[in-house]
Amino acid sequence: MAEKAVLAYSGGLDTSVILKWLVDTYGLEVIALCCDIGQGDEELEGVKEKAERSGACKLVIRDVKEEFARDYVFQMLKANAVYEGCYLLGTSIARPLLAKTQMDVAKEEGATVVSHGATGKGNDQVRFELAYRTIDPSIKIIAPWREAKFHEDGLTGREKAMEYAARHGIPVKQTAKEPWSTDRNLLHISFESGILEDPWREPPAGTYVMTVPPDEAPDKVTELEIDFEKGVPVAVNGDAQSPAKLLAHLNEVGGKNGVGRVDMVENRYVGMKSRGVYETPGGTILHVAHRGVESLTMDREVMHLRDSLISQYAAKVYNGFWFSPEMRALNTFIDATQENVTGTARVKLYKGNCRLTGRKAPKSLYDMKIATMDTDEGAYDPTRATGFIELNALRLVVGSKVFGNG
Amino acid sequence: MAEKAVLAYSGGLDTSVILKWLVDTYGLEVIALCCDIGQGDEELEGVKEKAERSGACKLVIRDVKEEFARDYVFQMLKANAVYEGCYLLGTSIARPLLAKTQMDVAKEEGATVVSHGATGKGNDQVRFELAYRTIDPSIKIIAPWREAKFHEDGLTGREKAMEYAARHGIPVKQTAKEPWSTDRNLLHISFESGILEDPWREPPAGTYVMTVPPDEAPDKVTELEIDFEKGVPVAVNGDAQSPAKLLAHLNEVGGKNGVGRVDMVENRYVGMKSRGVYETPGGTILHVAHRGVESLTMDREVMHLRDSLISQYAAKVYNGFWFSPEMRALNTFIDATQENVTGTARVKLYKGNCRLTGRKAPKSLYDMKIATMDTDEGAYDPTRATGFIELNALRLVVGSKVFGNG
Amino acid sequence: MAEKAVLAYSGGLDTSVILKWLVDTYGLEVIALCCDIGQGDEELEGVKEKAERSGACKLVIRDVKEEFARDYVFQMLKANAVYEGCYLLGTSIARPLLAKTQMDVAKEEGATVVSHGATGKGNDQVRFELAYRTIDPSIKIIAPWREAKFHEDGLTGREKAMEYAARHGIPVKQTAKEPWSTDRNLLHISFESGILEDPWREPPAGTYVMTVPPDEAPDKVTELEIDFEKGVPVAVNGDAQSPAKLLAHLNEVGGKNGVGRVDMVENRYVGMKSRGVYETPGGTILHVAHRGVESLTMDREVMHLRDSLISQYAAKVYNGFWFSPEMRALNTFIDATQENVTGTARVKLYKGNCRLTGRKAPKSLYDMKIATMDTDEGAYDPTRATGFIELNALRLVVGSKVFGNG
Amino acid sequence: MAEKAVLAYSGGLDTSVILKWLVDTYGLEVIALCCDIGQGDEELEGVKEKAERSGACKLVIRDVKEEFARDYVFQMLKANAVYEGCYLLGTSIARPLLAKTQMDVAKEEGATVVSHGATGKGNDQVRFELAYRTIDPSIKIIAPWREAKFHEDGLTGREKAMEYAARHGIPVKQTAKEPWSTDRNLLHISFESGILEDPWREPPAGTYVMTVPPDEAPDKVTELEIDFEKGVPVAVNGDAQSPAKLLAHLNEVGGKNGVGRVDMVENRYVGMKSRGVYETPGGTILHVAHRGVESLTMDREVMHLRDSLISQYAAKVYNGFWFSPEMRALNTFIDATQENVTGTARVKLYKGNCRLTGRKAPKSLYDMKIATMDTDEGAYDPTRATGFIELNALRLVVGSKVFGNG
Repeated sequence: MAEKAVLAYSGGLDTSVILKWLVDTYGLEVIALCCDIGQGDEELEGVKEKAERSGACKLVIRDVKEEFARDYVFQMLKANAVYEGCYLLGTSIARPLLAKTQMDVAKEEGATVVSHGATGKGNDQVRFELAYRTIDPSIKIIAPWREAKFHEDGLTGREKAMEYAARHGIPVKQTAKEPWSTDRNLLHISFESGILEDPWREPPAGTYVMTVPPDEAPDKVTELEIDFEKGVPVAVNGDAQSPAKLLAHLNEVGGKNGVGRVDMVENRYVGMKSRGVYETPGGTILHVAHRGVESLTMDREVMHLRDSLISQYAAKVYNGFWFSPEMRALNTFIDATQENVTGTARVKLYKGNCRLTGRKAPKSLYDMKIATMDTDEGAYDPTRATGFIELNALRLVVGSKVFGNG
Repeated sequence: MAEKAVLAYSGGLDTSVILKWLVDTYGLEVIALCCDIGQGDEELEGVKEKAERSGACKLVIRDVKEEFARDYVFQMLKANAVYEGCYLLGTSIARPLLAKTQMDVAKEEGATVVSHGATGKGNDQVRFELAYRTIDPSIKIIAPWREAKFHEDGLTGREKAMEYAARHGIPVKQTAKEPWSTDRNLLHISFESGILEDPWREPPAGTYVMTVPPDEAPDKVTELEIDFEKGVPVAVNGDAQSPAKLLAHLNEVGGKNGVGRVDMVENRYVGMKSRGVYETPGGTILHVAHRGVESLTMDREVMHLRDSLISQYAAKVYNGFWFSPEMRALNTFIDATQENVTGTARVKLYKGNCRLTGRKAPKSLYDMKIATMDTDEGAYDPTRATGFIELNALRLVVGSKVFGNG
Repeated sequence: MAEKAVLAYSGGLDTSVILKWLVDTYGLEVIALCCDIGQGDEELEGVKEKAERSGACKLVIRDVKEEFARDYVFQMLKANAVYEGCYLLGTSIARPLLAKTQMDVAKEEGATVVSHGATGKGNDQVRFELAYRTIDPSIKIIAPWREAKFHEDGLTGREKAMEYAARHGIPVKQTAKEPWSTDRNLLHISFESGILEDPWREPPAGTYVMTVPPDEAPDKVTELEIDFEKGVPVAVNGDAQSPAKLLAHLNEVGGKNGVGRVDMVENRYVGMKSRGVYETPGGTILHVAHRGVESLTMDREVMHLRDSLISQYAAKVYNGFWFSPEMRALNTFIDATQENVTGTARVKLYKGNCRLTGRKAPKSLYDMKIATMDTDEGAYDPTRATGFIELNALRLVVGSKVFGNG
Repeated sequence: MAEKAVLAYSGGLDTSVILKWLVDTYGLEVIALCCDIGQGDEELEGVKEKAERSGACKLVIRDVKEEFARDYVFQMLKANAVYEGCYLLGTSIARPLLAKTQMDVAKEEGATVVSHGATGKGNDQVRFELAYRTIDPSIKIIAPWREAKFHEDGLTGREKAMEYAARHGIPVKQTAKEPWSTDRNLLHISFESGILEDPWREPPAGTYVMTVPPDEAPDKVTELEIDFEKGVPVAVNGDAQSPAKLLAHLNEVGGKNGVGRVDMVENRYVGMKSRGVYETPGGTILHVAHRGVESLTMDREVMHLRDSLISQYAAKVYNGFWFSPEMRALNTFIDATQENVTGTARVKLYKGNCRLTGRKAPKSLYDMKIATMDTDEGAYDPTRATGFIELNALRLVVGSKVFGNG
């Protein structure tokens, strides 16, 4: 009996060709797994027929949108994770869940092989495979883009792949290839390679998908109030929603207002720099709002310590170590920092801007009576600051006397 | 002969009253030092007369704008310093220079006392005094807001201060007090306290000074190309300018486009949370552009290490430790990271947005040939990534076998 | 009715004098709280009589040894906390528990004031008072060493204090004052000030108390096997013991072998450097043994992340922030890192040395089959390391080509 | 004409076999490079004859001891680098210098290939090759232990290698193979694999080479005074010595006193845990003494910041990134921290112990007058600490009121 494999299947040309190639090259029974992670209905259309015609023994569709929003996106949001100051990690955080779902299906179906369509130069292969190996070290992995035969068969080039598809009756949209590659899910859409590779050239007008250009957004402010409980967004304008629905809603509102575009050059884990263009409308809004609620409810030293760990946390997510001992320890820490992060942030969206304009919390560390500079409270003892300054200055004073201050 | 003091003098009601009070209370000869740090000409108007009528034995005016931009703002910019994710440290970075200039003047004039008008609850008293003490531990400091007599004399309240001024012939503008307090320099203007203290209430329309409201900004994009050399901005749209002129120019352009507003709740060094509203138009543009040039020219590990230190660096600046052994060591490190940060960033300003759209560098670490995913280069050996993933997975695989992955 | 105060009372001259002084100066009813934290029976002897004769309305004795070992020492041990590379924080970790017990007693007894005998230049005042204030912000604190009247009464000098004691019938040992001050508990004894203040001069022979001089220790090795569960020591040589008993036992064995002496100059939180001499025999053994068990059971990245936080963790303990939001978050993180730290370490004690010579664990990440270099396993694919090296080298190669390597 | 290669050559069986194999397999002209890095004269004996009989076209001997001590060991010492709490990085820090010297010779000789004898499972291959690639990305690398043919030829097993040597007339010592592998240089000797792989089993008596067993060391204390200038050791007991001589001298003295043994399980960069046994007598002494001088001369905040970076610094050295942009930036930082680290430490060596007993510095931040607790200086204002504590407590007090302290 043939060995079974589970392929991370999108229904596009690439993974359809890979599906067929796996069957033909290795004699595997290939189960196509298509996860609905919010990539949009058009991408899921006709996927069943395509999988069958590509030679799948079975198509499994899993809706992981709620799991994605709740256990991945919102968990990462609690950490305010940003990679290299700009990237909200939309693709990075999705791969582990796709891999985990693949491994779940492999277990259910008795498959011993998993496969994916990620190329041999990118981060995604690492993210998929670190997750596979961690979840079950005995799993066999086939990464066609790193197989000599796949290259020999010419399937890394689009034309040959189109021919291959035609020859095997795999239905292919007759659209022109987009001049870049994209990845979309509930948190974001990414664009890279192709004509985007020149880092000085601005992405062409038609690149963006989830957001309108700021100058075509409505010329009026949209105001949102977002409620958080323990660091997790739970309602927008008082309307409680499930994680995936809340995120989808903010994507829509954010997108209409041109919010969440990023254009950057980033450092891949596999060693090279790469230009990435991203749209993360809902994630951007949540990021801003979350900081707003934290600013009222989080202790200073906890915040500074957490902030000092953001770049490491983000790099771990980016590099594909979501399922790792260090991420478990970090997420435990992050959860501890969010115990009191309950409150409401108000943001204003306007032509690409997402600006915090207010924050409140049922239990707040902000105390107007203490903060005020206006009045001369009876309780205030002006000598306190003197002592504070003097003792903080002591080592500087000694250092200055001994070594000078140059 | 009377002891001499140097007072950090702005020409406003507060420091005028303090000037007179220092003379009367301590019998000091008070030298009023007014630094032009970019607070604007209207603030400097009539300062000579005001100082004299407030009892100064002398008025010293120092233009420190170039020093401020070059040695303070641009140095900090190299570190991408941001406090608590939002604040570009406009006031924090100015205080050490004001204190240093005061100490210079004290030395020149043979003064043994320095004084400032910062209140007893804020960060500025700390920033001034840590600098004073480090520069010359033997200096005597009078901080009137922490003096019992100053409180007893009622001079902490506006009305009494107005009376006191009137009584002593100190000229006072008959304008209504603004409902908040502000601090302005070449990098920013800040607003805090008063009606801004309610963190849920949005700052009223008339708060902002350096920037137009985004919705009143021109409905067209302004494009800027900013050149950096070793991390320092040197030209805008090819036009080389001195540091202060460059920053002033960007303030103007940024301000017209509504760029650089921040509304936050921050943690003061002296222990309480406080609401701050800031406008930093030029600084915001430079911050975005600097990251852009870094993204092409800075090594990944250098960037991640530096990013992990930003929150500490920013806290040190915020807390007033600019002149400290740890800042000297950190700035040496920062300078080392900027050796190769030479290149050009293009940003687009539009109705409050400042968005990076391109970056280039004469020597760039970005190599299109390596980054591309499109083609199948001869040189590419697909087994390399396999080994990379396998060895990175090894500890995870062992951990998973031994402890499971939960 | 008089207000009640709880004084941290040791039974020594200093706190006896303070007790009386508090009664006389403020008219307080003073409850003397004497915690048995392992300072030794001789220190507790006659404490009841001394308290009464010093004017206490009541003496409360609390045995906190088990709580100290379990919730304070062993928790800190899990973090491998060391201050400035040397100090195992024996005094720092005790103060918060003493303060907490004081606050418990204050609540039980309806006291509104707490007091302690720590001087005005040391860290202990900070540790006591941060804990008091955090536990109940409304408590009133009297720190006699910072009271003008206490200084005026001359009670900061030993002779005057002796006179005062004699005058008030407070029993005082007629021993000569030791030429330093000490603090002892179950974890350590410290010596500082007096003749120890010269950092070049070695502590005189008679300084040490818990340990014999290495050269007087037995000329044979003592071997110990220590079992840990989730990072916590539970048994010595197979003998399960309560936390306090285990620590006391190791103090004895370690002390006999001259283990655990430290002589250092440290940086106090209040700003000055200070010479401290410490004996921590059991803590030193546990520190070494804990690292040993971790080395088999802790993931590499978790260890490196934790190691990078040790200096911050230790400084927080040293500075007195044991009861703080950041310590709660850090301890949650630390606990997460210790989930699998279960196993046994073997150490050899010999004339001052404490050396790890073996470690084992029921579930170990150390896999001899993988680690071995001797044989040529079938499974081993030599190209893996090539890929690992190549991709790790990629950024270096590009950097070298672009910028050179100087 | 044949291509030229430079082989890192030790004169032992392994690299002799590799030399011959490189010649025979690839037809290379192999230059044997033998660096004198302090591995001891017996290892260098007869190396010329062995190289020739193994087929080398040339033997190059380079004495790199002074360069090693000065630019590598002492630079790393300034950072107090320790890997995973125990390992002083003796092998890790030598590899980059060996690789650099190889690249120097390759350039001089017009060689296009470099080769080394490190196995395919260890860290050393990474350290050699990252350095090669950084210094000249165009260099070709042959790592025989990762070549299929080398395995096919059976040369990874000792017996076959002995046969191979005999067959080709390579002189081999007829000693029995040691039951572990070792690496020795001026800083340390390491032992790993073989019978040491059982982490519970103590290394057998005969393992150690540089140090006597503590119980066989003299029963009297040896006292040393070590002078440092800007963090670098320059003299022992007043006797100024070159870096390599100073280190060799301390190895001898330390070794006689049984100082510097470490037995640990460490995490390799290539993913597995490994047991390592080390002797680092001189390095241990310098490590202790350096901390001693720092304790008097280094600012607190500089020290804490540096301490928080030690684990990263050490991991970079361990992983082979000595020649990298991040190490250049880190070493610049480290140098800045050492500006004032000039002074003398006194250590006592005794039967395995190395204990700091005194430290002094011409310019010291330790100020007995400030540190003393004994007296009541006039200058002391007891209210200062009150303010310091109060403002540090403020956020805790507010947090406690709002959230409780649990």
